[in-house]
Amino acid sequence: MTEPTKRLAAASEDALWRIFTVPEAPDSTLSIIEQNLSQNLAGFLRESIVALEKPLWQIERDFQAHQIPLSPQFVSDYAESMMQKLVAHSVHTASPSFIGHMTSALPYFVLPLSKMMVGLNQNLVKIETSKAFTPLERQVLGMMHHLVYGEKDNFYKKWMHSANHSLGAFCSGGTVANITALWIARNRLLKADGDFKGIAREGLFRALKHYGYDGLAIVVSERGHYSLGKAADVLGIGRDYVVSVKTDADNKVDVAQMQQVLTELAAKNIKVLAIVGVAGTTETGNIDPLAQLADLAEQFQCHFHVDAAWGGATLLSDQYRHLMAGIERADSVTIDAHKQMYVPMGAGMVVFKHPSSAHAIEHHAEYILRKGSKDLGSQTLEGSRPGMAMLVHACLQVIGRDGYEILINRSLEKARYFATLIEHNIDFELITAPELCLLTYRYVPAQVQKAMAVATSEQRQQFNELLNGLTKFIQKRQREEGKSFVSRTRLTPAAYDRQETIVFRVVLANPLTTEQILHDVLVEQDQIAQQNKEFYPKLLQLAKTLTG
Amino acid sequence: MTEPTKRLAAASEDALWRIFTVPEAPDSTLSIIEQNLSQNLAGFLRESIVALEKPLWQIERDFQAHQIPLSPQFVSDYAESMMQKLVAHSVHTASPSFIGHMTSALPYFVLPLSKMMVGLNQNLVKIETSKAFTPLERQVLGMMHHLVYGEKDNFYKKWMHSANHSLGAFCSGGTVANITALWIARNRLLKADGDFKGIAREGLFRALKHYGYDGLAIVVSERGHYSLGKAADVLGIGRDYVVSVKTDADNKVDVAQMQQVLTELAAKNIKVLAIVGVAGTTETGNIDPLAQLADLAEQFQCHFHVDAAWGGATLLSDQYRHLMAGIERADSVTIDAHKQMYVPMGAGMVVFKHPSSAHAIEHHAEYILRKGSKDLGSQTLEGSRPGMAMLVHACLQVIGRDGYEILINRSLEKARYFATLIEHNIDFELITAPELCLLTYRYVPAQVQKAMAVATSEQRQQFNELLNGLTKFIQKRQREEGKSFVSRTRLTPAAYDRQETIVFRVVLANPLTTEQILHDVLVEQDQIAQQNKEFYPKLLQLAKTLTG
Repeated sequence: MTEPTKRLAAASEDALWRIFTVPEAPDSTLSIIEQNLSQNLAGFLRESIVALEKPLWQIERDFQAHQIPLSPQFVSDYAESMMQKLVAHSVHTASPSFIGHMTSALPYFVLPLSKMMVGLNQNLVKIETSKAFTPLERQVLGMMHHLVYGEKDNFYKKWMHSANHSLGAFCSGGTVANITALWIARNRLLKADGDFKGIAREGLFRALKHYGYDGLAIVVSERGHYSLGKAADVLGIGRDYVVSVKTDADNKVDVAQMQQVLTELAAKNIKVLAIVGVAGTTETGNIDPLAQLADLAEQFQCHFHVDAAWGGATLLSDQYRHLMAGIERADSVTIDAHKQMYVPMGAGMVVFKHPSSAHAIEHHAEYILRKGSKDLGSQTLEGSRPGMAMLVHACLQVIGRDGYEILINRSLEKARYFATLIEHNIDFELITAPELCLLTYRYVPAQVQKAMAVATSEQRQQFNELLNGLTKFIQKRQREEGKSFVSRTRLTPAAYDRQETIVFRVVLANPLTTEQILHDVLVEQDQIAQQNKEFYPKLLQLAKTLTG
Repeated sequence: MTEPTKRLAAASEDALWRIFTVPEAPDSTLSIIEQNLSQNLAGFLRESIVALEKPLWQIERDFQAHQIPLSPQFVSDYAESMMQKLVAHSVHTASPSFIGHMTSALPYFVLPLSKMMVGLNQNLVKIETSKAFTPLERQVLGMMHHLVYGEKDNFYKKWMHSANHSLGAFCSGGTVANITALWIARNRLLKADGDFKGIAREGLFRALKHYGYDGLAIVVSERGHYSLGKAADVLGIGRDYVVSVKTDADNKVDVAQMQQVLTELAAKNIKVLAIVGVAGTTETGNIDPLAQLADLAEQFQCHFHVDAAWGGATLLSDQYRHLMAGIERADSVTIDAHKQMYVPMGAGMVVFKHPSSAHAIEHHAEYILRKGSKDLGSQTLEGSRPGMAMLVHACLQVIGRDGYEILINRSLEKARYFATLIEHNIDFELITAPELCLLTYRYVPAQVQKAMAVATSEQRQQFNELLNGLTKFIQKRQREEGKSFVSRTRLTPAAYDRQETIVFRVVLANPLTTEQILHDVLVEQDQIAQQNKEFYPKLLQLAKTLTG
């Protein structure tokens, strides 16, 4: 069959039947695109995505129609137009020189496996529409549980496939994972008691009245992920009750201050729902002192959740897993497989220390999620969802612990290498050294550094404002030129009098990023800086007035 | 390169590098599997999935290991083992004779497009990692909004791509869509007022105190989806406050009774957060009288949400969209594209009548989701998530309104045909006639029907219990034999004195299901019934005692 016969020209029954029964011809436009993609993904992305960034409003012009088209379209025409309008203006997340986000290159085998997953079109909400995918997902959660908690063999024999227990929940991402963990914490805290049927049935208002609390709180470092605010909002706790604790110079939570906060909240009769430890902050990649937080959680008798969405994969490295010490004492842990585990987007997980934790959020329904069944939907926030666990399973088996050991270690070493590079470059300043594979830095011309050393506090502030403008300019221009990409964020480093400081943020998880690329990123930033007509000359002038 | 060279044998750097840079060789096991899948998906599924059902505990034996393997594995070995252990024991959701669930066959072009989506690995949480995917998703939501609300051109010009507005939210599925809608309803109701900073910031406890309510409630028909219970739990409302209203004989909510319930709740000072109309119940596919519910929502001044996860696609049929009349008055509407819109699993949506609705749940963060940016994550429950909207976009363009018109109409006609078939078969009884393409029925031998007509109420109950056992038996056996699959559920039909009645449930959305298949399903059920050694003989005997 040739492509035109596939057109639903007059939207005939026959043509419609065909799109469900007749595969793409090998010479169809879409098949040819797919072959390019299969034979050389890196080349496909490099050639299909235009380097020079188009302004968003121009891209939007191709997505203006608000009416679903009446007439069907040739698949080939659609595919071609999407190559121009969509693919060309996507983000080259797999590029080794795009070191600003947490999305990296993918191993090749996940592409055909994804297609298989989509073709099988299983629905993990219940066993009737997922069958073997259910034990597979439970196994993945069991393996991740073992990675975190390392319980004995019997533990997994007993619980991994037990109908009414869960070692974790598979989610679309870390946000849903964090919400799930805190939902469980909330419901376990405000459980049924005497006449009170529990928060799940009676709601938060009656729960707080019954238990006599004036409010609930989540305590976390100021570097906690924004999803905790979302969770507090959704769960009815209120975003103002995500109580932020200052971090030390190294971006780890100040434990003494956290203890004080916990004491103050108790005095105000605000019950702490959970202490959240961050294992790999989004901005700087630092890890809270988890063992000390576990102690606090014991002392104040509250749930201890660790948000290891980013850092969790470090557990796969025997060399570096000690950085996460204490995580095994958490009641729940979030880990995203679509970050440092090299799985495609859409694979978050939360694991629970106790197999019965999810009882607190269990739901049943007649036609679905029957009691005693192994339906996964009865213990997850999401309902219908795809079999993404298969791709995590594949990566765990094909890459293995030994493979991940190398991948994780190399990432961390690369970050250390880049940090050294920055420190040896007189026109750059390292702001946060990498604990994992994240670091932040900025461009500060040598003469400005010299001047700042002798500047008054007021002058320093003036320098800082100019530097913030320059950093923003460099980051934006570099992104627009499309050769490389670093992200930016705002920190308040002690070294800069806790002033708001805009910095470049780099994530070095892409195995294909070379040392040469890191050199080139700095060279490009240096060049862009010198092209700046606003902040750069002002900085030099100000420096001159101080150091002559 | 040949397959063995891909092995991460000693987990060498080189081998690791290769899984990120060297595609599957065309003659590798995985490539060959993928080719089969591409060239003939239906054949691939038919041949790869074993028909005869294996008990779950046997399948689980292949997913027992709880330790992540140390050594890497050949991709080919993994692919082969997954064909045996996973694919063989998946559910053939695309089979035209599997008419028991809401998952259907997929159009071919979504497979290569999915692979492209995975290869691009965009993250829709923010514009920096999704670029053109963001306007594309906004366009899809705009089109779905137009399908429901049909606003004028200017409306979409103004709002579709407006940074601080949303015409809807893309979600992993209907559950998250429903939670999102009710989260918005809750936060709009309990908004900032005077000293009170709003529920999003201060939480539910203070919100109810401030507004002086004794509780919140969601009012919905007894056929409402279980996700509403989940939503009530998550949002802190409490599952007991999802107040169920009886349905009429036709499984539509009893509006008079709903009005009474609303009045009673008001008298108890329980504020109704939202009235939920069901447009396509999961069990019987019926649609509530939406216009009347809209009137009630106006009268009682509460949010009106329509759960059209299943039925929403009916709007694509000019012939049948009148069944949904009143939906355009809803404040929010859930529609799942992975159901009747033939998109792969993982594509839920909720659309909002008012572009500013999502302000109630807006979140910002520094390094991400900057204020004024077009980052989608600032107005959705989920954070990082894949570009599934692309597949909805593709189906809308390639199938078009004209194509969907035929697909939806044929499904509804097929259900009407099957209903006639059942009614003309003396050994079956239609329990609920199809309004959309869902119907329920059961097997009741003619002589039993005759006897039940003259039976006492007590005897009818006895019959019913035996029939329930028989229905369960037939459904389970038919599923196990793997030729066809209908699901089962429990209803309380007026015709059976509101007794709990187990029924077969059929969803006729697969375009490949033929009339012959429907005939065969009944024949097979008849045969299975007669093999039953427990309920079937007892039924006949009991009938005999009554009719001789």
